[in-house]
Amino acid sequence: MRIAVDAMGGDNAPDVNIEGALMAVDQIPDGDSIILIGDESVLKERIPSKYIESGKIQLVHASEVIGMDESPVIALRHKKDNSISVMAKLAANGEADAVVSAGNTGACVAACQLRMRNLPGVNRPGITIVMPTSGGPVAVCDVGANVSCKPINLYQYAVMSSLYMEMMHNIEKPRIGLISVGEEDSKGNEMVKKTRDLLRGDKRLNFIGNIEGHDLFKGVCDVAVCDGFVGNIILKVSEGLIANIVKVVKEEIQNCKSIIIKLLALKFKSAFKVMFKKYDYHEYGGAQLIGVNGTSIICHGSSVGRSICNAILAAEKLRNEHLNEKIVDFLEKSNYQGAANGQ
Amino acid sequence: MRIAVDAMGGDNAPDVNIEGALMAVDQIPDGDSIILIGDESVLKERIPSKYIESGKIQLVHASEVIGMDESPVIALRHKKDNSISVMAKLAANGEADAVVSAGNTGACVAACQLRMRNLPGVNRPGITIVMPTSGGPVAVCDVGANVSCKPINLYQYAVMSSLYMEMMHNIEKPRIGLISVGEEDSKGNEMVKKTRDLLRGDKRLNFIGNIEGHDLFKGVCDVAVCDGFVGNIILKVSEGLIANIVKVVKEEIQNCKSIIIKLLALKFKSAFKVMFKKYDYHEYGGAQLIGVNGTSIICHGSSVGRSICNAILAAEKLRNEHLNEKIVDFLEKSNYQGAANGQ
Repeated sequence: MRIAVDAMGGDNAPDVNIEGALMAVDQIPDGDSIILIGDESVLKERIPSKYIESGKIQLVHASEVIGMDESPVIALRHKKDNSISVMAKLAANGEADAVVSAGNTGACVAACQLRMRNLPGVNRPGITIVMPTSGGPVAVCDVGANVSCKPINLYQYAVMSSLYMEMMHNIEKPRIGLISVGEEDSKGNEMVKKTRDLLRGDKRLNFIGNIEGHDLFKGVCDVAVCDGFVGNIILKVSEGLIANIVKVVKEEIQNCKSIIIKLLALKFKSAFKVMFKKYDYHEYGGAQLIGVNGTSIICHGSSVGRSICNAILAAEKLRNEHLNEKIVDFLEKSNYQGAANGQ
Repeated sequence: MRIAVDAMGGDNAPDVNIEGALMAVDQIPDGDSIILIGDESVLKERIPSKYIESGKIQLVHASEVIGMDESPVIALRHKKDNSISVMAKLAANGEADAVVSAGNTGACVAACQLRMRNLPGVNRPGITIVMPTSGGPVAVCDVGANVSCKPINLYQYAVMSSLYMEMMHNIEKPRIGLISVGEEDSKGNEMVKKTRDLLRGDKRLNFIGNIEGHDLFKGVCDVAVCDGFVGNIILKVSEGLIANIVKVVKEEIQNCKSIIIKLLALKFKSAFKVMFKKYDYHEYGGAQLIGVNGTSIICHGSSVGRSICNAILAAEKLRNEHLNEKIVDFLEKSNYQGAANGQ
């Protein structure tokens, strides 16, 4: 297996991408390799020659980089030789089996959708992220690939994310919740109501009904589906709120006149470290662009080496355990027929 | 002014409602009064007779109560003499100038919309809540009154919430953000794009453009508008996440074997108290059902006496400072004409 990694993506590129590749390279099986994409002269200097010589790490040059804040549409149009497009092209041409990037999310989604096409039976790919909660990990799909969803899209997100959680988190018959504004059947907008009928109609799914925003953190479900507009807002509100709480606690401690409390704060760090390890985004590697004809993992812009390494290992697992084949098989046997040939 | 309070609403009824009314009664001007609605025999026992005799507190009997988890539609249909409906009827008949309830939110919204009707020019009322953040208070509208919005609804939510923040939080020209999935104009679904044009077209508004979920906590805007489906999820995700963090921290501290850390936790309480006071939901009293022809404040189910008291005082202020008249005036001069007569 060949895993293409965008060396230039993310807030801390290329350092963390190189670090992540070097962490992963000795953990992947013999015969598999990592393709690093970016400024070849920089990469060559940083990668130990033994990996280049053995072919465990290959380098592919890309002369341009899409910035994290650039408009994806404009950037993809004007920077033809950017690392994300080069990466997606490798996958499309069969020169890479999976792709990993911590770069501009919109550009990754657009480039992968454009080049890799959809799996047979899938109308639109979605982004699945795994949120760590005290009730266990919860996959949320879609968090931003598709902001104008139809019920068939949400049904397919439920199918794909359910198979994903079975495989990646060893959850048997994952419980699927549909995000709405109340638990009763009468609650929700038109799309929610129609999606509920589709999910209820497929007895192979473990559908538990509507869930509300706060249920995400209560361990009531393993998979939560919503359209990309709502999912993106859930993700960003969660990130924003946590960052806000951390900021407020820091300020309160700094403003605190008692030296003792300041010292105690340091002592507390260890307890917080234990806690955050359990709920650490980086443990999960990244989000998956699910439904494309290939394996595409999109990491957070603030990824560290460990996140990139975990994303590479997750890509190995998804590919080896044939997630995509299982999705295609499941959808083929569905009463709700989606796109015929991945168009 | 007569403020009707649903004595039977909320998780801790009637205690906190009685407590809140008694806290507020000496703070409202001479001539104003509080009408408590609920089981008259219970209320009579608990209210000091001097308030009844002076007419500062009046009692109105309601023989039924809608539970917090009941389906609003079914409950309103079958429990004709419930405290929420009795309260809304008082306002509709001109026997109360404002209403306050910590009861079943769906039932409150439905009863108030049904009985009180809309303000002239307003197509659909919305629920405005004020979220406390380290960047200052942010009004979010709608958080659940209207899950299938049109652009004109969002425009009106922006107008009404902006006037609300000017009045209640003394913010001059409140900055209005439109919740979307990216800052660029190209981002968002069709409704967001059409709403943006309406907001941009009214130069009396201080519209700053699209905002993302995490921006809510960064102090970039004073008002954030979205449809009731998205807003409800923002509210519930925020509440759920905070509850989850508190739970995790508690568990980590309990599981911690070090006695010293446990003792430190107690010391930390004071720092947390200072912090939470700033970000305390109860300080704001409750959410406002904005756009109905009257003043309707819906409190959190977990309200304490202080929240009910603050809600009563907020209702006084909104009414005295003529929020509704300002809304009607603003919308009358708008290029985008809404409903003609509050239908």
